Amino acid sequence: MSLIDQAKALDAADPLAFARARFSLPEGTIYLDGNSLGALPAATPGRLADVVSEEWGNDLIASWNKHQWIEAPHRVAALLGPIVAARADELLIAESTSINLFKLIAAAARARPRRTTILTEIGNFPTDRYMIDGAAGLLGLKVRAVAPGELASAIDQDTALVTLTHVDYRSGARRDMAAVNQAAKAAGALNLWDLSHSAGALRLDLNGLGCDLAVGCGYKYLNGGPGAPAYLFVARGLQDELANPLPGWLGHSDPFAFADAYAPAEGIRRFLSGTPSILALAALECGLETFDGVGISEVEAKGGALGDLFIAAVEQGCGGAVGIASPRDSSVRGSHVSLTHPQAYAVMQALIAQGVIGDFRAPDVLRFGFAPLYNRFEDVVRAGEILADIVTGGSWDQPHFHQRKAVT
Amino acid sequence: MSLIDQAKALDAADPLAFARARFSLPEGTIYLDGNSLGALPAATPGRLADVVSEEWGNDLIASWNKHQWIEAPHRVAALLGPIVAARADELLIAESTSINLFKLIAAAARARPRRTTILTEIGNFPTDRYMIDGAAGLLGLKVRAVAPGELASAIDQDTALVTLTHVDYRSGARRDMAAVNQAAKAAGALNLWDLSHSAGALRLDLNGLGCDLAVGCGYKYLNGGPGAPAYLFVARGLQDELANPLPGWLGHSDPFAFADAYAPAEGIRRFLSGTPSILALAALECGLETFDGVGISEVEAKGGALGDLFIAAVEQGCGGAVGIASPRDSSVRGSHVSLTHPQAYAVMQALIAQGVIGDFRAPDVLRFGFAPLYNRFEDVVRAGEILADIVTGGSWDQPHFHQRKAVT
Repeated sequence: MSLIDQAKALDAADPLAFARARFSLPEGTIYLDGNSLGALPAATPGRLADVVSEEWGNDLIASWNKHQWIEAPHRVAALLGPIVAARADELLIAESTSINLFKLIAAAARARPRRTTILTEIGNFPTDRYMIDGAAGLLGLKVRAVAPGELASAIDQDTALVTLTHVDYRSGARRDMAAVNQAAKAAGALNLWDLSHSAGALRLDLNGLGCDLAVGCGYKYLNGGPGAPAYLFVARGLQDELANPLPGWLGHSDPFAFADAYAPAEGIRRFLSGTPSILALAALECGLETFDGVGISEVEAKGGALGDLFIAAVEQGCGGAVGIASPRDSSVRGSHVSLTHPQAYAVMQALIAQGVIGDFRAPDVLRFGFAPLYNRFEDVVRAGEILADIVTGGSWDQPHFHQRKAVT
Repeated sequence: MSLIDQAKALDAADPLAFARARFSLPEGTIYLDGNSLGALPAATPGRLADVVSEEWGNDLIASWNKHQWIEAPHRVAALLGPIVAARADELLIAESTSINLFKLIAAAARARPRRTTILTEIGNFPTDRYMIDGAAGLLGLKVRAVAPGELASAIDQDTALVTLTHVDYRSGARRDMAAVNQAAKAAGALNLWDLSHSAGALRLDLNGLGCDLAVGCGYKYLNGGPGAPAYLFVARGLQDELANPLPGWLGHSDPFAFADAYAPAEGIRRFLSGTPSILALAALECGLETFDGVGISEVEAKGGALGDLFIAAVEQGCGGAVGIASPRDSSVRGSHVSLTHPQAYAVMQALIAQGVIGDFRAPDVLRFGFAPLYNRFEDVVRAGEILADIVTGGSWDQPHFHQRKAVT
């Protein structure tokens, strides 16, 4: 059976096929970049119009009560609970991944005051590394970065916190969360995971695997829109022990008392700081609602199968013209596949010109993300065929495909 | 001439009267709470619908280039320049007021490493105070809070930073920015102002008055919507000296290189951290565009006159039944007026029931904000008359007006 026939059979049997109708996807585009920016949920435009015109426009300041804006960071977080296997009262929507990372790094370091090291991996997501280094500088801590795979064994009595991105943003390789958490626990260190490339694509089990702290963005597989608010997770048992290093009125035990002195709210609420964007929260709420009734194990299984089929199509069509930079075993892969080509930038421009959207990562990586709620098996085989035409036919080698733009 | 006739004459001669059409205001409501949440600009629903459906929905990840999402924090900040009298390259839209306050407190403290004190006033805006105390705790600094009016004289050689809200959130009293800045400069300390209750209502002159650093929110007089992104200001001469304590990829000198080590961008860009909400930025852009072609001196003059007329209406109608808790001299007042009443909460509920929206601040303050772009002189006289009916007729004293809600 040809790959395209296999794809059609898989689509016909797909238990998640119904979810594609929850999105507004442009005609004629194969969108394999939901790992950078998730597609637009069909419900979002109407919901935002309502929040803007009815809630803000008509009800104005009364909406903080009338439409429960004040509870939005918690209400939206609760939708994330089943996606990451955490309790609603362990999650919060707030700020950006970067800011949340700082909050939890600083909180963890102060909860382990006799330890001086933040441990991470070489090649951790760069912006996370910037914040880790920044926080360490501010707090007078050391950062120790070890080779990939050596994290668990490097944890020692001086480790306050071990922190890592769960899925490598280049290769798509998954890190062994259970092993790192166990080693950290045994040594008395806390763990902090960035789930930006995992949540909404992989079956996570924050509670079951002993995660202490986590952060992640809302704009990739969670479909919250460009620059959507991020989330943070603090395990219930740690909430009383940890202080928010960036305290603000919304995390106060009595926000409307306007007391001069800060007194932290109980539980996860203390990790709120300033006023969140209600419009951005409404969009993220619609993004998370695309997971209503969806089994996250089915999401992970489909993501892995989409990646496997894409790799098969690429190998069949491209031969040795591109390299496979991701694990072939989907059980240790996230929901994206990275290929290498010496002219990856121009190749991606040629793909985009033919309606296949992925992204380019310098110097030579073509990255394709699989969003199981809306990507179809037929899409990934077609994408592989189009890629094969481009790289084997040389059609990428046109001057306009080499003109670099700031972002691809 | 009666106050209502005076009001009608003032409205007829108002050079800003044209601006009211730039807003969608609910029928039958007198909205005097733009100092808590600005009204909806008429352009916002259409702009947001376009950003959501066309930019995000159709153009997806390509919009970072195609629709210049990547420049949005700077493009929107440039609209704020004339409102606060600062250069476009000294301003940035980012995060919340709280987070920006932390960034600039930490940056300032590290730029004055031999000084150990952050100086502020007793009664500074509570959430600002929480962040000041939080930052001081993290950085090993002392916080010294002096009585209102004593700030300039309290600055000494140990002061790293002096920080204050420009307009008192209760009384509406303006602080003497020029005097504080001069004293800080003479002592070698930096100044940091929270302009949340000033920008868009008062004529500010950040450059002319020697401001070093400032922050403020986008959702009050700037009409950016609930929880709109905030802004920060760093005087050009300080930008190279200050480091962002919360570094992220957008503040990197080459954001798309995904380099392992952080290298700050030139100038104001280094104060960006994570990915901002593009939807929230679009709404704030519409909010700031309501100031197109508006002279900020006229805004301040009208705000002062609205407050004066409101006080006159209140005094005429209420007599001694309410207290005036704001300065009577509009030149030292912000754009809101606070009244006191022992049953302020119930009185505000009664006002709201009659379509006059202000807000309540515990324990006994009724606060009315004047947004010169859309409030009319007739509105404030009517509001004073309705208030007078309520407090002199006792109609506030009904059980349902005493039932407290979380927010008013």
